[in-house]
Amino acid sequence: MAKFDLIIRGGRVATAADTFDCDVAIRDGRIAALGDDLGTADEIVDARGRLVLPAGIDSHVHLAQPGAPGQVMADDFESGTRSAAFGGNGTVLPFCLQRRGESLRAALEAYHGKAAGQCYVDTAFHLIVTDPTEAVLGQELPALVADGYTSFKVFMTYDGLALSDRQMLEVMQVGRETGAIVMIHAENDDAIRFLTDRLERLGHTAPRFHATSRPIPVEREATHRAIALSEIVDGRIMIVHVSNRPAMEEIRRARSRGLPVHAETCPQYLVLTEADLEGIGMEGAKAVCSPPPRDLASQEACWEGLRTGVFDVFSSDHCPFRYDDPAGKLAPRGRSSFRWVPNGIPGIAARLPILFSEGVAKGRIDLNRFVALTATNHAKIYGLYPRKGTIAVGCDADIAIWDTDRPTRITHDLLHDACDYTPYEGIEVSAWPVSTLVRGHFVVRDGQLVGRKGHGAHVARAVAPN
Amino acid sequence: MAKFDLIIRGGRVATAADTFDCDVAIRDGRIAALGDDLGTADEIVDARGRLVLPAGIDSHVHLAQPGAPGQVMADDFESGTRSAAFGGNGTVLPFCLQRRGESLRAALEAYHGKAAGQCYVDTAFHLIVTDPTEAVLGQELPALVADGYTSFKVFMTYDGLALSDRQMLEVMQVGRETGAIVMIHAENDDAIRFLTDRLERLGHTAPRFHATSRPIPVEREATHRAIALSEIVDGRIMIVHVSNRPAMEEIRRARSRGLPVHAETCPQYLVLTEADLEGIGMEGAKAVCSPPPRDLASQEACWEGLRTGVFDVFSSDHCPFRYDDPAGKLAPRGRSSFRWVPNGIPGIAARLPILFSEGVAKGRIDLNRFVALTATNHAKIYGLYPRKGTIAVGCDADIAIWDTDRPTRITHDLLHDACDYTPYEGIEVSAWPVSTLVRGHFVVRDGQLVGRKGHGAHVARAVAPN
Amino acid sequence: MAKFDLIIRGGRVATAADTFDCDVAIRDGRIAALGDDLGTADEIVDARGRLVLPAGIDSHVHLAQPGAPGQVMADDFESGTRSAAFGGNGTVLPFCLQRRGESLRAALEAYHGKAAGQCYVDTAFHLIVTDPTEAVLGQELPALVADGYTSFKVFMTYDGLALSDRQMLEVMQVGRETGAIVMIHAENDDAIRFLTDRLERLGHTAPRFHATSRPIPVEREATHRAIALSEIVDGRIMIVHVSNRPAMEEIRRARSRGLPVHAETCPQYLVLTEADLEGIGMEGAKAVCSPPPRDLASQEACWEGLRTGVFDVFSSDHCPFRYDDPAGKLAPRGRSSFRWVPNGIPGIAARLPILFSEGVAKGRIDLNRFVALTATNHAKIYGLYPRKGTIAVGCDADIAIWDTDRPTRITHDLLHDACDYTPYEGIEVSAWPVSTLVRGHFVVRDGQLVGRKGHGAHVARAVAPN
Amino acid sequence: MAKFDLIIRGGRVATAADTFDCDVAIRDGRIAALGDDLGTADEIVDARGRLVLPAGIDSHVHLAQPGAPGQVMADDFESGTRSAAFGGNGTVLPFCLQRRGESLRAALEAYHGKAAGQCYVDTAFHLIVTDPTEAVLGQELPALVADGYTSFKVFMTYDGLALSDRQMLEVMQVGRETGAIVMIHAENDDAIRFLTDRLERLGHTAPRFHATSRPIPVEREATHRAIALSEIVDGRIMIVHVSNRPAMEEIRRARSRGLPVHAETCPQYLVLTEADLEGIGMEGAKAVCSPPPRDLASQEACWEGLRTGVFDVFSSDHCPFRYDDPAGKLAPRGRSSFRWVPNGIPGIAARLPILFSEGVAKGRIDLNRFVALTATNHAKIYGLYPRKGTIAVGCDADIAIWDTDRPTRITHDLLHDACDYTPYEGIEVSAWPVSTLVRGHFVVRDGQLVGRKGHGAHVARAVAPN
Repeated sequence: MAKFDLIIRGGRVATAADTFDCDVAIRDGRIAALGDDLGTADEIVDARGRLVLPAGIDSHVHLAQPGAPGQVMADDFESGTRSAAFGGNGTVLPFCLQRRGESLRAALEAYHGKAAGQCYVDTAFHLIVTDPTEAVLGQELPALVADGYTSFKVFMTYDGLALSDRQMLEVMQVGRETGAIVMIHAENDDAIRFLTDRLERLGHTAPRFHATSRPIPVEREATHRAIALSEIVDGRIMIVHVSNRPAMEEIRRARSRGLPVHAETCPQYLVLTEADLEGIGMEGAKAVCSPPPRDLASQEACWEGLRTGVFDVFSSDHCPFRYDDPAGKLAPRGRSSFRWVPNGIPGIAARLPILFSEGVAKGRIDLNRFVALTATNHAKIYGLYPRKGTIAVGCDADIAIWDTDRPTRITHDLLHDACDYTPYEGIEVSAWPVSTLVRGHFVVRDGQLVGRKGHGAHVARAVAPN
Repeated sequence: MAKFDLIIRGGRVATAADTFDCDVAIRDGRIAALGDDLGTADEIVDARGRLVLPAGIDSHVHLAQPGAPGQVMADDFESGTRSAAFGGNGTVLPFCLQRRGESLRAALEAYHGKAAGQCYVDTAFHLIVTDPTEAVLGQELPALVADGYTSFKVFMTYDGLALSDRQMLEVMQVGRETGAIVMIHAENDDAIRFLTDRLERLGHTAPRFHATSRPIPVEREATHRAIALSEIVDGRIMIVHVSNRPAMEEIRRARSRGLPVHAETCPQYLVLTEADLEGIGMEGAKAVCSPPPRDLASQEACWEGLRTGVFDVFSSDHCPFRYDDPAGKLAPRGRSSFRWVPNGIPGIAARLPILFSEGVAKGRIDLNRFVALTATNHAKIYGLYPRKGTIAVGCDADIAIWDTDRPTRITHDLLHDACDYTPYEGIEVSAWPVSTLVRGHFVVRDGQLVGRKGHGAHVARAVAPN
Repeated sequence: MAKFDLIIRGGRVATAADTFDCDVAIRDGRIAALGDDLGTADEIVDARGRLVLPAGIDSHVHLAQPGAPGQVMADDFESGTRSAAFGGNGTVLPFCLQRRGESLRAALEAYHGKAAGQCYVDTAFHLIVTDPTEAVLGQELPALVADGYTSFKVFMTYDGLALSDRQMLEVMQVGRETGAIVMIHAENDDAIRFLTDRLERLGHTAPRFHATSRPIPVEREATHRAIALSEIVDGRIMIVHVSNRPAMEEIRRARSRGLPVHAETCPQYLVLTEADLEGIGMEGAKAVCSPPPRDLASQEACWEGLRTGVFDVFSSDHCPFRYDDPAGKLAPRGRSSFRWVPNGIPGIAARLPILFSEGVAKGRIDLNRFVALTATNHAKIYGLYPRKGTIAVGCDADIAIWDTDRPTRITHDLLHDACDYTPYEGIEVSAWPVSTLVRGHFVVRDGQLVGRKGHGAHVARAVAPN
Repeated sequence: MAKFDLIIRGGRVATAADTFDCDVAIRDGRIAALGDDLGTADEIVDARGRLVLPAGIDSHVHLAQPGAPGQVMADDFESGTRSAAFGGNGTVLPFCLQRRGESLRAALEAYHGKAAGQCYVDTAFHLIVTDPTEAVLGQELPALVADGYTSFKVFMTYDGLALSDRQMLEVMQVGRETGAIVMIHAENDDAIRFLTDRLERLGHTAPRFHATSRPIPVEREATHRAIALSEIVDGRIMIVHVSNRPAMEEIRRARSRGLPVHAETCPQYLVLTEADLEGIGMEGAKAVCSPPPRDLASQEACWEGLRTGVFDVFSSDHCPFRYDDPAGKLAPRGRSSFRWVPNGIPGIAARLPILFSEGVAKGRIDLNRFVALTATNHAKIYGLYPRKGTIAVGCDADIAIWDTDRPTRITHDLLHDACDYTPYEGIEVSAWPVSTLVRGHFVVRDGQLVGRKGHGAHVARAVAPN
């Protein structure tokens, strides 16, 4: 029996199914053994009293993605993956955004260019399809799936992004044929524009009217529609960032009909409400994201959905714009109307502590469900499994070591992103992932960045089984 | 007590609520009295052993409406209202179709021109909005509502007709503000095109693939969407020609949330199935309409919906194209694909006998529900009440006298329209409306046309109370 | 044309379907004609500016029924039917309660004895079956149905009344075979006892804990069970006094499966809440009834159910016990526990003004629905139609003349019952039925009792068609 | 690093979450390590090409339980646990049945007496409560929970077993207070008796009428009722042997309301239908169990429930009666009516191969879900976790080694029980658990019984976390 590179000793290990106390032995970046008494290693890390969990996978993050003209996303691959590591994540799935007229392959090369040598944790790109030409549908997408880009994303809202129903069907059809999953941002674009125009005519332009412009029926309708379209092509979809009970109900009904519909929710729907869009001046812009946070009953519904399996994954939808910045939330036209405030909030580092503290520590979900929601299910649904997403022999040694007795008040400086605020400022959490390993190497160790920029690699993905 | 013009003696009278035996006395075109012993009249009609019902109102008929280029609708106002009278109807509500670029007022004048002096029964136009410009929304529609055109129709499918969601919202908003109701043809246009293209690529071009191209989720999705849009503007809508249980379920759910959503079904969904789209050569074209007839379980669902109140009205969706005619079902391009077969079937005369025989005579619905579904509810929902739609003192004397013991096999020659077939050929019915009076005058009497062309008048309508 | 006995001139007449202005002519206690200009009569009553409605039918009233030992129901047939007439009712359906061991025929004779010569309005007995012996099931019930007693009632709770599921099935089976409808008081008796015992052990004995002891799941469960039992025998049932949305939802679901399930709600579920069970000392006892009033959301649900057809009938569940009376609400043991407070509240006279004012006048339901809910549907469902329940030629001239512009604050003295309070004290209504005719004779005229005790007759009933 | 007792080398290991290839090292009956290269052991077993799964836990088996007078259950603890081992199970949870009048503790001692020294696999008793006296509720049950008997079972049907709703509430209340879970056999006893009596009167006494006597509404009703009762005490329940979609729907709805309701289904609802109750003479008796198998649509519903999480556990409900035996299915009175045919079928050995072949091999569920449904969830829900139910460091080495390429036709002789037939005779399966280890010792090895009678031990159980 060969010597190990590293043994994490004495922690409590959890997977999506099991919790057990044992040592974790690592060799060549992989988990080589689990046991009580595994022999020797180059290094032994004491994890007694700590939780040893699969590093988080965040399958919904935006990094270095261009916004509207003049808007600049706060995080590039360096700062974004650094923040991810500080938040206990070992892999993130950012988006490669096709611009209209652009080939997807070209877009992908550009994103790989931005990411190359910059990442602290592993990455894999989802493909945002905004221009599903015949070439894209017939050649590029199938080839890209074969190359390991096995998930597409489509938008039902946003200028320059939104697809028509016909285009969605075409993309879903490619998903059906290649095995790729289609992620869907489900809000009715026309309804949002109609309501936004009406609000502006009434002079209701403050950030809080962002919520008014996207009421629950706007999201529920698009959710129903996306499901119906997927039903027509018999394809597999993921409804991302679900915020409320009626939309959840559409998902439940779809599953009762036997449809392969997955669903995601995010921290903003658990701990924020539309009240966070209020505030003096433009302060509410800090919580402007879509769908908007709802109310306390919706939070409760989302918790129930996490507990009962409506939601398969819990992601951050990290989409960072600086607040005090004309290229960010204080965009020049933003004062004239919420319509021009960039949509999106940062959350890549706060996601796991919030879910752990509000969920596991408060008894709303158990530890194994936490692992499933934050790592394993992401890996399985998006084709990273069994390489990523669990602690089992043969997997990548992507591990987060948690201190579960560390009362912490979230402040922006803890998050190490390139934004200038966090919408979760002031929230008290009880646990924190103090160390993060990616393929057996510490990226963050005891709260310090020790990883090498460029350690993070891109991971080709398989097609998930149905 | 003055003499009456006419007394209908000894029949069994039914309204949407009541059934009673009495004489009906008519003076000046209105019902002047109901009673047993009402004195004298210029004419006494013996109705012993007969049912005396409110004449039918058919709120969904297409007359003299232009189809696609080269297609000609079989019925103009003369033949259409004649057939209506033979089928026991006293009022029909055809559509005035705005062409894109055209003003609604101009369109309406043209339709009035076509109808003037031609009608045997009374009429009132719904306004099909295909081009909701600012002028249409801001000026024309409000003015037209004030003039008694209190219902709009919008299409979610068909070239040149379909509105975007945004346009639907705008039209619904005008409905909300003026009190007009918005009728909706609910099918997802993009999905139909996607499926049609796919079917054509596979060489599946026969008429029966018309049904395959418009499966239930296509209708259910659009129904859900239409409801969501109406919810956003808090407007009143009518989902027309509902064909199946899942679409009905969306309507039921909407009402459980308190929304003012009305619904209609039609004879084709009770007695036809998609099997009627099969047949040798182009024979199936005779049953091509949208949504397509479904299956036996859907028929059962529609009956249940008629019985339990899911459906408020039962209309014909009379949309006649001749079969053996290049301007009709055998359109030149129709052989190359079902896509080019004109959509729509005739039914203005067959509607009432079919519902009576299959519904009342077979115990599926009671007589009062029949009256509600075929007359009273149309009048109430579309603003013709209390002038039309019932037998009560002061109402227009629009009456159908039924022989309920007249086994009849439906053949096209019984219907007196200008089409050359009926999709209901061969169906056995047990009852027939042998005489029809409009405002106290016989239009059809004992199966003979006795009315004067031009007796039929246009009726201005009120806004229905919520 | 013969002279009429009475003409009610110039009122606005409404039925369950129609509203029209006309005179109503009466001869021999029946409606002989409706019209504008009906000739002469012995008496002409001016009803201009008034509503002329079918007199109310209250199909759920308890009169002269024995309570628990020592309890005495406040109203006998004289005072109960007098109060009914003051409240605009022409017919009431009290219960004949079989005592265990007693034959139903004997019970009925006793009740007829109590009623004989005492009634101001017409009556018809429902049969409460508490002891479904073979003789009762096999002989008595079928014979009684043949004699015109076409409705049974069974209780799922209350000592001495509650039937087992097996007994309910047996009674429903007789209903199925004879065509009689089975009314069901749906609350889970065991659950109530369990909760009551627990509350008493905790010292929670005040009247307000009556509500705590019968939470919504207790009613919803029994509703589901009653429906399931009726489904097993394929019988027709009426769920009486439904108080909340989850129970309504069970009824909706049953109908979606095609089951003939009727439903009733009552004024207490529209205008009272469990807060009315609070109050100083025993004051809350005034609102003790079962199921208990719920909350504002339940009120809203019940209104929606009245509007959308969940409820077929609206009754009072008049079950009067005097408050300040040891044989009533202040029963000696009542102070020791809510368990011993007699269940039931008076409402026979307040029912119609409350529904009219809160429903019709406030736009929640329309006038025709009011007539359906308060008269026509009772007549149809319980086999009194077409003799009762509408204004149509040939019907009994049971008519209420309403002043709809009479703001009135409900006080007990307006109600003319033999109770000493009303739970609706202080409620403002806007309309009142100022005159009531039964079979053409005024019982109450312009607010004065003018009828003859004994004018009210018992009415044999038919079996309602399915 | 110490030597291991046994290493299972080279198999594919699966848990409820993960699948990975590794060696499993066992020491002192527990899993000591998982890894690729774990050193030496006393014995090395080659598992290349095999699946290495957690041994099955069957949480619903009846062994040596007295039936009705004259009936004898075919399996005692020896034969039952032997058959369990042949079917890949490491632990079974039989019932300890309290007889009315008997103390639970006494009953338990008797069952322990029957089991002592007889078992091949581990066991743990559920407590069937038939006589919830004050002593049972107040003292025995809390003490027994403290002693590790943390699950109760109650029946809603069967003579001598059925509890009233009140009794169920009392038992559930103890469950609520102690943390024990309450298992429920949900069928409406009164309805079954009513229908059985009716069928017998009609001469419908053959075994196939067993299904007619227990239609789906009988099960759905009781399921709804059980859920409502648990809702009232806020307790945790398990609905066992669910057979159809409407009952599943009640469970889904309960969870949407946030209730902790678990559910189980069994092989008979996946591969049998009521057609299996037909057959010449008494042959149908072989499939008589309750609820009865339903139809193909119900099978499909149950599969969907296994896939989508409606069902937490999959058990056998092994309840064996010999067929050709007057103490079994051919009970003397059984020929006179299905009522007297003992209810229950054997399945302890066939459960896992059937679910694997029909479920995993045919792609209906994945391997991890199989493990969850057959082992892990049983352990978690019934308090055996983390000692049982998974393959993880520290757990009992309860392992089944599967040959997944072993086409086998099920015949009774493969099952090694003491019955004389299997209802699954002739079913083709593709996989079989060829070896079973309990706490590190082979009980069955390559299809041969090698275990020691008495190796099976009783396991005290914890209270599961909510």
